[in-house]
Amino acid sequence: MLDNTRLRNPQLFDKIVTPEEAAALITDGMNVGVSGFTPSGYPKKTTIALAKAIKEGKRCRINIWSGASVGPEIEEELAAVGAIKGRMPYYAASNKSMKKGINEGKIEYVDQHLSHFGQQVDYGFFGDVDVAIIEATAITAEGNIILGPGVGNAPIFVKHAKKIIIEVNTSIPLNLEGMHDIYIPAIPPNRTEIPIYHAGDRIGKPYVECGIDRIDCIVESDILDHVRDLTAPDAASIKIAENLVEFLEYEQKMGRLPEKMLPLQSGVGSIANAVLLGLAKSRFENLEMYSEILQDSVFRLIKLGKIAKASGCAFTPSPSVWEMYKEDPDLYRKSIVLRPLDISNHPEVIRRLGVIAMNTPLEFDIYGQANSTHVMGCTMMNGIGGSGDYMRNGFLTIFSTPSTAKCGSISSVVPMVTHADHTEHDTMVFITEQGVADIRGLSPVKRAKAIINNCAHPDFRPQLLEYLRFAQQKNAHMPIDLAHCFDMQKKFYETGTML
Amino acid sequence: MLDNTRLRNPQLFDKIVTPEEAAALITDGMNVGVSGFTPSGYPKKTTIALAKAIKEGKRCRINIWSGASVGPEIEEELAAVGAIKGRMPYYAASNKSMKKGINEGKIEYVDQHLSHFGQQVDYGFFGDVDVAIIEATAITAEGNIILGPGVGNAPIFVKHAKKIIIEVNTSIPLNLEGMHDIYIPAIPPNRTEIPIYHAGDRIGKPYVECGIDRIDCIVESDILDHVRDLTAPDAASIKIAENLVEFLEYEQKMGRLPEKMLPLQSGVGSIANAVLLGLAKSRFENLEMYSEILQDSVFRLIKLGKIAKASGCAFTPSPSVWEMYKEDPDLYRKSIVLRPLDISNHPEVIRRLGVIAMNTPLEFDIYGQANSTHVMGCTMMNGIGGSGDYMRNGFLTIFSTPSTAKCGSISSVVPMVTHADHTEHDTMVFITEQGVADIRGLSPVKRAKAIINNCAHPDFRPQLLEYLRFAQQKNAHMPIDLAHCFDMQKKFYETGTML
Repeated sequence: MLDNTRLRNPQLFDKIVTPEEAAALITDGMNVGVSGFTPSGYPKKTTIALAKAIKEGKRCRINIWSGASVGPEIEEELAAVGAIKGRMPYYAASNKSMKKGINEGKIEYVDQHLSHFGQQVDYGFFGDVDVAIIEATAITAEGNIILGPGVGNAPIFVKHAKKIIIEVNTSIPLNLEGMHDIYIPAIPPNRTEIPIYHAGDRIGKPYVECGIDRIDCIVESDILDHVRDLTAPDAASIKIAENLVEFLEYEQKMGRLPEKMLPLQSGVGSIANAVLLGLAKSRFENLEMYSEILQDSVFRLIKLGKIAKASGCAFTPSPSVWEMYKEDPDLYRKSIVLRPLDISNHPEVIRRLGVIAMNTPLEFDIYGQANSTHVMGCTMMNGIGGSGDYMRNGFLTIFSTPSTAKCGSISSVVPMVTHADHTEHDTMVFITEQGVADIRGLSPVKRAKAIINNCAHPDFRPQLLEYLRFAQQKNAHMPIDLAHCFDMQKKFYETGTML
Repeated sequence: MLDNTRLRNPQLFDKIVTPEEAAALITDGMNVGVSGFTPSGYPKKTTIALAKAIKEGKRCRINIWSGASVGPEIEEELAAVGAIKGRMPYYAASNKSMKKGINEGKIEYVDQHLSHFGQQVDYGFFGDVDVAIIEATAITAEGNIILGPGVGNAPIFVKHAKKIIIEVNTSIPLNLEGMHDIYIPAIPPNRTEIPIYHAGDRIGKPYVECGIDRIDCIVESDILDHVRDLTAPDAASIKIAENLVEFLEYEQKMGRLPEKMLPLQSGVGSIANAVLLGLAKSRFENLEMYSEILQDSVFRLIKLGKIAKASGCAFTPSPSVWEMYKEDPDLYRKSIVLRPLDISNHPEVIRRLGVIAMNTPLEFDIYGQANSTHVMGCTMMNGIGGSGDYMRNGFLTIFSTPSTAKCGSISSVVPMVTHADHTEHDTMVFITEQGVADIRGLSPVKRAKAIINNCAHPDFRPQLLEYLRFAQQKNAHMPIDLAHCFDMQKKFYETGTML
């Protein structure tokens, strides 16, 4: 029940409406910006009501803009009724109707660097933000918005929105207040520096500035975010994590990393989780994260005292970790800073702090290009997300993945990626359970040998070496055979295995 | 003749040696860092002497590190005698022996983002800088180095070099003094902001800090930089420039660009030159450049009063423009700032200032990927240079090129690039003499239609549309046919034409 701890001005109570009334504000062709990032901090009630209205005959196809993929109340409910015309800037394969719509070409999806999208909305490149739907913990007496666990692009959407719907979610603990640090850079030519010098620095306000008059309506919500528990790391992930920790220790020993470890960024998913848990067992102390999304392992490492500061644009505790949070909210509140997406992923800050970036590709090739997004070059799996922001700008950048997929039938190392998300200029180190290929300063042929011999699975090394030998028949800086570079992927497509 | 206007401390005269004596400091296996950027401000005498010594029997293969490609006294002389083992971070096809060595795999070349290389040398990723050879205008009483017209990575090389050779070139006008702004960012975790807020801001010193004791020897030089006059713009370049100016005016009208034009970056070569000359005829006034290399057209626009401030890491006036400079050096000195390469190309500054970036690709594809470097995916033409730095971080980014090459036998638009230097996430606008494709916010199939219909040459549109139609038979987010995506390039390879 909404009370004055959640709505801190009596005028706000007059704005409470039903989800159906809120959904009625959304009409055909609109650009709709939603708060949240991954299944965290996104609105739920209004979009469920909109999907219901469409099922009952309302004609409405809209463009959904967000921080990243959000939860099924948007991705699934709206996609299933054909309500989504366009989608930016990220999508994840876990939402089946969205996946189907995008890959059948029915939903116009534009995959973007997450640090770019918010600023380009701010520049007006994509047109108006007709409606913003923002999930909130509470609204202040001045009408400013205290967000939930996911910030994403909410501040930019609120800045520009013609209409604002706020879902105040009573299931979010009120003690999240103070975790957010909301800062919107000025538009050039008036932009100045982003004054973050350490991962934990605060530079903005604990709320999104809005004002009571700009709020069109308020919807009460109590639906929990749909975060699932991560699976426990498997043998390959544990070995990858060991290889990674060993590599970082070696870099420190060689004087190429400072004694106090630089801030870490870690991607999403089970490999990333295993890597962080691997760091928990390392000799590194007082770690800092300057990352995008903070998953369960970050909370566990804060509790263990391994992580001192963690900056992200959202956190996604699974139900069990929410319980852990509730036992000692002050510990997490003083350790965690939640920022807008274009600040968490800002090239300026990532390069200044010297972030060590760790992400997982779908496949990478012998010359060091990485594919993070497209299966067989054409089917969108997951968007590029923030990986480009961190891998281009990090101090030291590491792509890690098991050397094979689908029970050993797919090699993660191929002669040429079918889609280049990270070019040969943007990658430094590849790690699989087989080993480490550090390609910094290596010319293409040396890179190829390092990647094949250190990272590829032994089952696939002969055909990769054979391709390289064949391509090298023509002398070239980067020996490529355009007639055979996709043979492994074509073989998989025809036979179901690259072997 | 070196006098006390060039060597401002008597001790410096004791360090004068012959080029042969200087070259003797360079031994097999060394990493040698040289000043300069394109044929501007690079050392000449020592490397000529080294090449001669090698011809006479000295055994010496070295790694050459620079800002970009430099002049023939290094690229040609040393490559021709097999003296170059490795080369970073840039190379240009104009130097034949270097091109041959790289593309026969005899010279280990590593192509890099120019904003990355200097900082990675600073981080120690590539090992020691054994020798730095720096071309200078003069040396101060304290032993600090006043550089010539090309800065490149000279400051980082001097910072780390175990031995320092300075070539003081008496052909460089002394009145270049004061143009340089030398600033080296601290290494993380101690790095702060790069405090540049306008293209013309000065944040460093007018010289490279060195000290008399660290200078091993001084060589007198009077060899001029090898800058050629640019050819006059042809009809296609003039039409491209018109399309570009019209596009920028439209963006301003739509409110997506501020009234005062944002700082411009322009790549190297005849298209870039034509574009700048096109801007000279536009209604834009008080232009600023935040660019890499400043070519003839910048000087002409400064003289016309069209450009108020120009920042770069080098300038390359042709002989006739040097004469223009000498008529009014104060005008150019107050308008031009010369910075280290990792500052001229710094993502932080490019994004903050909101640079409008304009570069020329070799080919680009229907989904918006661009190839700046490799012919047929394997032969290195020119390095990526700074194009990745500017195109990833610019406010608005434009790739422009004629729609065909080699008398119409090659289409600049292809189904898939053979080498992706700029991914689909990094490109916004393509311009040819045919028209403009603005792909911001467009999903892949819409992008393909815009690029084919607006940018491709009519001779090639049918086969590009046919490929798209064929690929679309399989529903997909990004319809690609791996068996046919390189057909146009393969046809050229086999028949000498894509038609």
